[in-house]
Amino acid sequence: MALRMSTLFLRTLREDPADAELPGHKLLVRAGYIRRVAPGIYTWLPLGMQVLGKVEAIVREEMNRIGSQEVKFPALLPREPYDATGRWTEYGDNLFRLKDRKDADMLLGPTHEEMFCLTVKDLYSSYKDLPLALFQIQNKYRDEARPRAGILRGREFIMKDSYSFDVDRAGLQKSYDAHREAYIRIFNRFGFEYVIVKADSGAMGGSASEEFLAVSPHGEDTFVRDESGYAANVEAVEIAQAPEVEVTAGPAHVEPTPDTPTIETLVAALNKDHPRADGREWTAADTLKNVIVMLVHPDGTREPLAIGLPGDREVDAKRLEVKVAPAEVEAFEEKDFASYPMLAKGYIGPGVLGEEKASKIRYLLDPSVAVGSAWVTGADEHGKHVIDLVHGRDFTADGTIQAAEIREGDASPTGHGTLKLARGIEMGHIFQLGTKYAEALGLKVLDENGKLVTVTMGSYGVGVTRAVGAIAEDNLDDIGLIWPRNVAPADVHVVATGKDESVFVKAEEIVRELEAAGVEVLFDDRRKVSPGVKFKDSELIGVPTIVVIGRGLADGKVEIKDRRSGDRREIAVDDVVAEVTREIGEESEATL
Amino acid sequence: MALRMSTLFLRTLREDPADAELPGHKLLVRAGYIRRVAPGIYTWLPLGMQVLGKVEAIVREEMNRIGSQEVKFPALLPREPYDATGRWTEYGDNLFRLKDRKDADMLLGPTHEEMFCLTVKDLYSSYKDLPLALFQIQNKYRDEARPRAGILRGREFIMKDSYSFDVDRAGLQKSYDAHREAYIRIFNRFGFEYVIVKADSGAMGGSASEEFLAVSPHGEDTFVRDESGYAANVEAVEIAQAPEVEVTAGPAHVEPTPDTPTIETLVAALNKDHPRADGREWTAADTLKNVIVMLVHPDGTREPLAIGLPGDREVDAKRLEVKVAPAEVEAFEEKDFASYPMLAKGYIGPGVLGEEKASKIRYLLDPSVAVGSAWVTGADEHGKHVIDLVHGRDFTADGTIQAAEIREGDASPTGHGTLKLARGIEMGHIFQLGTKYAEALGLKVLDENGKLVTVTMGSYGVGVTRAVGAIAEDNLDDIGLIWPRNVAPADVHVVATGKDESVFVKAEEIVRELEAAGVEVLFDDRRKVSPGVKFKDSELIGVPTIVVIGRGLADGKVEIKDRRSGDRREIAVDDVVAEVTREIGEESEATL
Repeated sequence: MALRMSTLFLRTLREDPADAELPGHKLLVRAGYIRRVAPGIYTWLPLGMQVLGKVEAIVREEMNRIGSQEVKFPALLPREPYDATGRWTEYGDNLFRLKDRKDADMLLGPTHEEMFCLTVKDLYSSYKDLPLALFQIQNKYRDEARPRAGILRGREFIMKDSYSFDVDRAGLQKSYDAHREAYIRIFNRFGFEYVIVKADSGAMGGSASEEFLAVSPHGEDTFVRDESGYAANVEAVEIAQAPEVEVTAGPAHVEPTPDTPTIETLVAALNKDHPRADGREWTAADTLKNVIVMLVHPDGTREPLAIGLPGDREVDAKRLEVKVAPAEVEAFEEKDFASYPMLAKGYIGPGVLGEEKASKIRYLLDPSVAVGSAWVTGADEHGKHVIDLVHGRDFTADGTIQAAEIREGDASPTGHGTLKLARGIEMGHIFQLGTKYAEALGLKVLDENGKLVTVTMGSYGVGVTRAVGAIAEDNLDDIGLIWPRNVAPADVHVVATGKDESVFVKAEEIVRELEAAGVEVLFDDRRKVSPGVKFKDSELIGVPTIVVIGRGLADGKVEIKDRRSGDRREIAVDDVVAEVTREIGEESEATL
Repeated sequence: MALRMSTLFLRTLREDPADAELPGHKLLVRAGYIRRVAPGIYTWLPLGMQVLGKVEAIVREEMNRIGSQEVKFPALLPREPYDATGRWTEYGDNLFRLKDRKDADMLLGPTHEEMFCLTVKDLYSSYKDLPLALFQIQNKYRDEARPRAGILRGREFIMKDSYSFDVDRAGLQKSYDAHREAYIRIFNRFGFEYVIVKADSGAMGGSASEEFLAVSPHGEDTFVRDESGYAANVEAVEIAQAPEVEVTAGPAHVEPTPDTPTIETLVAALNKDHPRADGREWTAADTLKNVIVMLVHPDGTREPLAIGLPGDREVDAKRLEVKVAPAEVEAFEEKDFASYPMLAKGYIGPGVLGEEKASKIRYLLDPSVAVGSAWVTGADEHGKHVIDLVHGRDFTADGTIQAAEIREGDASPTGHGTLKLARGIEMGHIFQLGTKYAEALGLKVLDENGKLVTVTMGSYGVGVTRAVGAIAEDNLDDIGLIWPRNVAPADVHVVATGKDESVFVKAEEIVRELEAAGVEVLFDDRRKVSPGVKFKDSELIGVPTIVVIGRGLADGKVEIKDRRSGDRREIAVDDVVAEVTREIGEESEATL
């Protein structure tokens, strides 16, 4: 049945909502798709339900196609399984925790690895039962510190999560590949530009993982690409260890550098007071910056960490976070300095850093710091730096860490040219979990030889509500949304205009014919609304094809308009059904 | 695509699960439809998803048919709207409450009147926007003290909740009637015996309400019927006030009745020591029992309440609960007696009860206690009762209360014969809410005269997961489930048996043909499972039509079996598709 604007629960807004930042989010609210209830928590109105239904159907079809079976786990879960894997604690403040009337600890599921693992353990016991792939489409909960951009990062959101179970790594690889292919089909059908990037597994654990990012300037994720097709989330970029170089520097020497607590002031002072013998200018890249942060472990213990990196780079907060997870990163504050009197703030050097040194603070170096290279760095005394301190000769560290910022133009880790940076919205994430969860929860099966083996798992997620948000951000113009055909709330928006009742009678007839031909219609049948308002609404709502029935009807003509291109043309009223079905057919093919 | 037993995520159990009480619940677990995660919290396995999908589709279709529009509100909600209506407190321990990372109070929605009301207030402002009906199918949460019978009373469950919005009571009546008709269609399609009973609105507020009960000995609700078609939940039965009678008793007189703290001991003592002049035996019905309970109001204050009723009746806990809601009922304990020394336990009488009497305890009488009737009741002194105490002459109360038990054979309140009692499972509940929520939340629209009027609401619920449970309890035998056609996990269960590969090849072909004819197939294609196990599984799972392909195939025969009747007959293999589609067609018609 056609959605009729005369009765549709909808009130389009001419003004942008105060609580929306991104253009797509503003339009979703203005056009009556969604409505905010609380930060990161949204209601789906009838038009939004149409789009959500299309997106869910695409995901479900592609999951069924690879033989994944649909189930539905509860969202409200007991604590115990999440304790067994440590995630009850590791999730930190992101987990919604609550107590029931009997004071039992419960949580709102952020993702369901534990629960699927336990159910498979309950029901299955043999390698003959595997491989197995299960999925659900369900509400998930994460108490985000910064819920963002409407449905792009909500605190309650719909996710499709799948889990695969195999006896060995080869099986996991097959399951992973099948899901990867299914995801490619899903995102192709959604109709937006995306990129598959290597990703860090983060708190999920496991070995390999990839993200599907919708390419968007509004994305929260930064990714890199090179000419060879390599693409990775910045968190997952692995800079190669710089090869050892021959030592050419003379002996290290401490120099007075008063009032140089920053790299900028240090470089200026070096060039003024300590010019190099060969006349080259000192730059920030010649200095070794030592950054101290405080790690807070899930059990609450605090541990400082020192990171040494070239002075022309910053530590990238996200790269650092994933490297130290499940610990969280906090600033190293004045009061912390008070507990470490050997740290001369602004002049900290490798002399006191390291587990074996005075501070006992773990010291990790950026891999670009080559053994044999010479640096200007802090001399652990206020107002003094040391020049020509050589890595491997004069100092060592406890290891390396991939936490420095990645920049446009950096050499690609593949060796193929340089990196380009772009932003994306994470739409899907696939993980080779391996045995982490199965081991923690004791999921084993008998193999062909009657030996118990731990099951190997994969986990795979698509943000369903987020997909709607991402599609909206990528498909709009100044006046409204422009839905890709496959996820549009209707195939065609029929707009009847004017005060002539015969127009509405004819429009009703056309709507009936379109529906008989299997076309989904949004029908603007409102009697007392001006054509101008109706056109504005149709542009705002963004159904891809708009048919206007009005004055031209006297001459047997109606107007057919393409929302994306803006092209409009008159066609004979008798051709409407044929023209509309042709357009739908063409576009559907084009997106496959 | 057929569900194939060889890969289906399913392990049927031969033993009853320890945590299940009712036969349908046991079978749902044994046949692999659902699985318990925590008390009142269940996972839906692939077979369960099939049934759930059918039930949801029926509900959705019938809601769409009456023009109700689908939306989806969050399950995780802010506290404020529920504070405005008082339900944050009134729900007591049944509400799951939690705090987010910013310490804001939130809840898991038990039902969404407040949220729908606020959204309509946000978007609509004129009588022209009404009537409006909205619905959602969504997870609901109630922290039941006694989660029961699997999915019949869960703590997380799926509900279809609808809300109607009208300018006046006449509009509400129309919306209510439309929903009532839709519910009749829904429950007819589910295919079980149900009854529509008058109900008490309870904590929901509002004026009229009716429940749809599945008639079942396992039901938690007791309802009454009389010959005239009247049916009511016991909580909603309104006993008429007994008409005044002429006083025939002499003056009241206090008599010693030592050691008679119970009605039974009292009646024995009366007949022994205080026989009546006319020789009639004393019975419990001649005594007036005064029961004291403690009401706990939502704000925590405690208030005793005294109920006077004939000694041959008990107070019905559920009837009392709905009459005193939102207060909760607790026992009046020894320590409470200590605070009321004028109450002689076992001998309490109207002499001290009532707001104006010594105890100041509110005193309410059962409506069967006629003005003018004489009673034996406590004399407020240990070991003493008063005889011939006449209502209206010797004592009065503060009012009446409908809280006495209803018994099979009681006179019907309609005046048509006597009441019959039965049990039922509440499947749907429809409420004429009136303006309670709209007033609390300020939902008003301009009427035709430009005057602001408060919107009149209705609310309507169907327990979707509960429906699956109720259908299961009503459709089973000793060996398994027997699904009604409309909600069965498949139309036909094709069982291929034996070791002859040609049987499986032919079975595959038949399955393909059935699917081409639009028939949903569950296909037992397992190679190494005995026919006996396959037959047991098919009986346990309960698909209404079973086709067995095996040895008879050599003679061109297969067996077709009706799960409900147990009838089985051989048919020609070439007739399978025609026979199966005929059976499906007949039954589908029969249930409409």
